[in-house]
Parts: sequence; structure tokens; C-alpha cells
Amino acid sequence: MIHWPDQRIIQLLGIEHPILQAPMAGVQGADLALAVARSGGLGSLPCALLTPDRMREEIQRIRSQWNGPFNLNFFCHQPPAYDSEKDKRWRAVLQKYYREFGLDPEARTPAATRNPFDEESCRIVEEFKPAVVSFHFGLPDERWLARVKASGVRILSSATTVEEAQWLEKKGCDAIIAQGSEAGGHRGSFLARDVASQVGTLALVPQVVDAVKIPVIASGGIGDARGIRAAFALGAAAVQLGSAFLLATETTISNAHRQALRSAQDDQTVLTNIFTGRPARGVINRLIRELGPISHDVPEFPHAAAALAPLRSAAEAKGQTDFSPLWAGQAIRLAREESAAEIVKRLVADVQGK
Amino acid sequence: MIHWPDQRIIQLLGIEHPILQAPMAGVQGADLALAVARSGGLGSLPCALLTPDRMREEIQRIRSQWNGPFNLNFFCHQPPAYDSEKDKRWRAVLQKYYREFGLDPEARTPAATRNPFDEESCRIVEEFKPAVVSFHFGLPDERWLARVKASGVRILSSATTVEEAQWLEKKGCDAIIAQGSEAGGHRGSFLARDVASQVGTLALVPQVVDAVKIPVIASGGIGDARGIRAAFALGAAAVQLGSAFLLATETTISNAHRQALRSAQDDQTVLTNIFTGRPARGVINRLIRELGPISHDVPEFPHAAAALAPLRSAAEAKGQTDFSPLWAGQAIRLAREESAAEIVKRLVADVQGK
Repeated sequence: MIHWPDQRIIQLLGIEHPILQAPMAGVQGADLALAVARSGGLGSLPCALLTPDRMREEIQRIRSQWNGPFNLNFFCHQPPAYDSEKDKRWRAVLQKYYREFGLDPEARTPAATRNPFDEESCRIVEEFKPAVVSFHFGLPDERWLARVKASGVRILSSATTVEEAQWLEKKGCDAIIAQGSEAGGHRGSFLARDVASQVGTLALVPQVVDAVKIPVIASGGIGDARGIRAAFALGAAAVQLGSAFLLATETTISNAHRQALRSAQDDQTVLTNIFTGRPARGVINRLIRELGPISHDVPEFPHAAAALAPLRSAAEAKGQTDFSPLWAGQAIRLAREESAAEIVKRLVADVQGK
Repeated sequence: MIHWPDQRIIQLLGIEHPILQAPMAGVQGADLALAVARSGGLGSLPCALLTPDRMREEIQRIRSQWNGPFNLNFFCHQPPAYDSEKDKRWRAVLQKYYREFGLDPEARTPAATRNPFDEESCRIVEEFKPAVVSFHFGLPDERWLARVKASGVRILSSATTVEEAQWLEKKGCDAIIAQGSEAGGHRGSFLARDVASQVGTLALVPQVVDAVKIPVIASGGIGDARGIRAAFALGAAAVQLGSAFLLATETTISNAHRQALRSAQDDQTVLTNIFTGRPARGVINRLIRELGPISHDVPEFPHAAAALAPLRSAAEAKGQTDFSPLWAGQAIRLAREESAAEIVKRLVADVQGK
């Protein structure tokens, strides 16, 4: 039996190791969540890009092989009204790329969009009652939040500042994910929106710990056992790791995507808004270099992605990642190509080893 | 006798505690360095803003009361040729502020400028032979570096990326200061210059540790004992703290400056180039809000500061910090108003306490 220095999150979520697998929409499904869960961590299923039917399928896949706790993750942004002016401007910016790939700029191809938590998501939570639900971009409407809470689920959400952490605690979160600026993927910001003032994990975690009573989960830049031990030293009760699982055999990324992640150096990721309209950290690629990292021509989240979808498909068909969001954190170099079970086992052994 | 988990930097520099006081040009002199040195840490005297005469005076002040190791810190940028076009453009941007304060935009007031390490600095090092010399923005010319080395001094410099760390090791540095993006003041960058891809301390330190053989000193966002323990967990052999000493009774900041630092929240600092021409982290104030944080109208480092000097003086005379660089890191909230001796004592006791 392994002794962890902080028992709060282990007990709160009913897991063996205080290691949460960060939900990574678009690059993983039930397989990764299942493998992490079975290894004693908290497996997470990102739901933002799934239809209700696909959500149910994936959850059933987890449930058919695992009785323990897992996490369903939802975005909870306010979807903005479609702004045809902004869309037109964005499409004008992208026109040269459409031409390059011989695509019709007028064609409207259907693309998976990032959906916020809604009535249907709430019903799915009530139906399956996962041990944990985590939210990104704040929390959903109070009526839904009350129903999620009433179904016995533990609620987590991400804070990128002390102010956001205090807001989440007040609204009834069971624990806070303190998301430092090193983290890959979308910033969870919902009060703070200034890309320039994002706080690093080492500075953020102790300040959040001082400001709230509920346990804090450190995330952002934690790539191996050293980062996990550091997080505990900072006062965190658990850690959430994304990039460390990104090259796991269970993720669904393409070979070209995998190759781009493999060769990314410590200083080759940036916060960019060009793929979705919200700042998210990813490996610098052609589209970021040419239009970003931050552009004011981008439609509001998540509408930016629609006009990019045909370009992304066309490029990916040629084995290129020039138009794909290559979400990754600043410790992506520490990621290893192992199964999720091997990753969790190695992390746990290495933390205990010292 | 206190046992530290890593002895390398303690032994290399001959200090009692592996705590380096970050040199903070413009806000401290010999007093802070002396107080930290006498408390068992490494006190640092920032020399970038000092004339050779003032340097000698400050060093003599330290030496008159302290026989042990201390650090002289120098900038080692290549001073760019004066560009009258850029200067004109910058002065045009600032004109409205000159008008507001009733200042003559044509007047050229002498202002302290940031000088790079040169022949005279090298002579001062050879004359006083401090235990340690640290450089910022890379390293000076090889002929000077060789003379510094030959005088028996230990050489440190800051790396903001793995690549910079490897470069510094190859050039003969004795240890690397891994400067995470949380750090206050100027980024030490000399190969990497993209503000958008600055790496956080938690991600940077282990990757630098993996890439070099010499010991690594963690800096950026380390505000108290939790940060120090985290740095050791990440593989650092020591820490360098700036903001933690910023409110010390020995710093030379004005009351208004002190007040601005006291009230700064975790997410109220940014990297800005508007004060000097190089990115540096400081508390958001009026000039940053109105012109920055990053402006392309700014002359190259360090020339941006000259045109700002009269504005800064005029504003400071009114007790305003609107035009002053309020350098601080993202853990400034953790700083306490104590003497430097109390700060070191508290940090050491708190690290040992757990």
C-alpha cells in the first residue's frame, strides 16, 4: 500500500493515486480514461466534441469494463450568437489557404463543434452518475449544477487565478484544478481573459492554496515524478497531467500529429486563439506562425474552428499538421510513448522512489 | 547545522544556505546584498545601473563588513547603435505624456542607462575578486570571460530555455540559473526572443536539469518555503528569489512603489518591453495599459528608458508610479515586509520545518 503525502483528493474521489488524467478533447476517448482508471488514477472522458449518442457509447464502454470512479469533462462556455461579419472576415483571412488546397471557400462543411454543458449533458450525468464531473471555463447554470450535485457527483473546475479559485469555491466546487500557464490545451479562464498575465504553476498553486479551503489539484507543466513531488511541496493535494499521457498508445492522434509532438522543444508551444477563438496552448505550426499566435480576426469561441475544418482535413489527408491544433503543454518533452498503465506505474514508482 | 538536500551549489559558492538573492537593479544596493550574505544566503549587487565609481563604493561597503562570498551581477547585452528614427518615433508616442506633465519633449535629460559588462567592469572584478559573478542576457566577450574565470570567480548566467542552458554550459558557466516565466524583471533570454513562448519554472527546471551536467538554480515564482521545496523536487540545487526580497526593509524603493507592489495580485504582472526595449515582468500600471505590454515603437534595449526618464521623474515627484517599471514576479503576493535577515531565517526555518 502506497502512502501519499496528501489524502484529501484520494478520499474525495475514491481513487488509489492522486493522479488525474487531463481530459483532452479530440485526441482521446474511453480507451485512455479506462486505462488510467484501471491503473489507479482518475481517467477522464472529454465530452465537448461528442454528440449525446457518442457520449453514451463511450461511457458505456468505460462502464462495461470498470466499476470504479471516472471523470466526465464538459466545457461550459456561453455559446455566442453566430456573427456573420466576423465569420466573413475570418474566411477572408483564410481564403489564400483555401486556394492553396483547391477548396471552395463558399462551401460549408459540417464540422464537430465544441458544445457547452446543457440539458442533455445534465441528463447523461444523472443517468450514469460518474464519480466526478469536471468543468472548463467556469461552471454551468446553477439549475444544472444543482442537479449534478444532487446526483452525488464530485464537481471540479479549473482556475487560472486566485480570483477564479475563490469564485469556484463559493459556487460549491469540491476541489479546484489550479491550471498554470504551462498547461496544454484551452486555458480554463472565465473571469481573467488577458493572455499576457497568465500565471505559472509554481506561482499559482501556493497562492490558490492560501486562498481557498477546498483541496487544490495542480496542473500545468507537470511531466514526471519531479513535477508531482513539486506540486505536493506547493501544497497541492493531487495533480492533473495531460501532456504526459499525450503520446500514450491509447490516444487517437495521427502519426503526423504524434511526430510533431515528439519533436517539440520546451519553448515551442504558445497560447493561441486562432484554432477556436479562445487561448489554448499548442505546438507552434504553420497557421500559428502565419496568423497568430493571437489574432483579432478570429470569431468568438468556438466558431473559429468551423472555417478551419476543411483546411485541416485537406492538410491532414496529406499527412500535414499545418492547420491542426497540436495542443500540448510546456513539459511535452517529458512525455513517453508507453501505455497509460505503464505511464501511471512509472510515475507512481518514481514519486515513491525518493 | 542544517542539512540541505543538495550540496552542490552550497559547496560551489561557499554559502550556508542554497538561497540566492536575485540582483534587482534600481531597487537595491549593498545593504540588501550584505544583509542576505550575513544571513547565510548569497547576496547580490546589481551593477547594470552603476558607474564604475559607484560600483567600487558599493563593493567596498560590502567588503568593509563582510569577508564571505557575494555576487556581482552584470548585464551583457550588445548595446545597439543609437537609432535616431526609432528614438523620434518613440518620443512621438510619448509626446502626449510630456504635454500632460508640462515637460519639454526636446529636452535631453541625462538618465542612468543600463551598461553592459566592459573592460572597466572586468577590471573591477579582477580587483575585488568576488566569489561569484552572474550575468544576464548571455555572457560577455570571451576575452573578458576568460579573465573573470582566471581571477577565480564562479560564473553564473540565466537560461530561459534548454537551448540557452546548453549554450551557457558549453561556454564554461559553473551553474545555470533556470529562469522561469514567473520571474520578475528582465527575461535573461539571449537566443530565444519570442515573448509568447516563455517557459514556466515548473516545466523549465527539470528539462534544463536533464540537459546539462552543471548544477541548476531555479528562479521564477518561488515566493516561500513551498516554492523552495518544489524547486529541489524538480532537481534544482539551489533557488534564486527576487520578489521575496522586494519588500525587505533594505530595498530602496519609494513608498508609492512599495504600495503598488503590496497590492499586486497573482495575475497583475505582465512581460513588457516598453520601459527598456527588452521584455521584463512588472506590475501592470498606466504606461503598460496604454502602450503595452509589448510595443513595436520601442527603441532597442536599453534606449527606450532615456525618453521615459523625465516622465518617470515628474510622476514620481507627485507620488505616482504610472511611468515607473514596477518589476515583480508572479509570486509577489507572497513577499513580506521584513528585514532581509528575517526573510532568510523564515525561509530556512520553513523549509526545514517539513
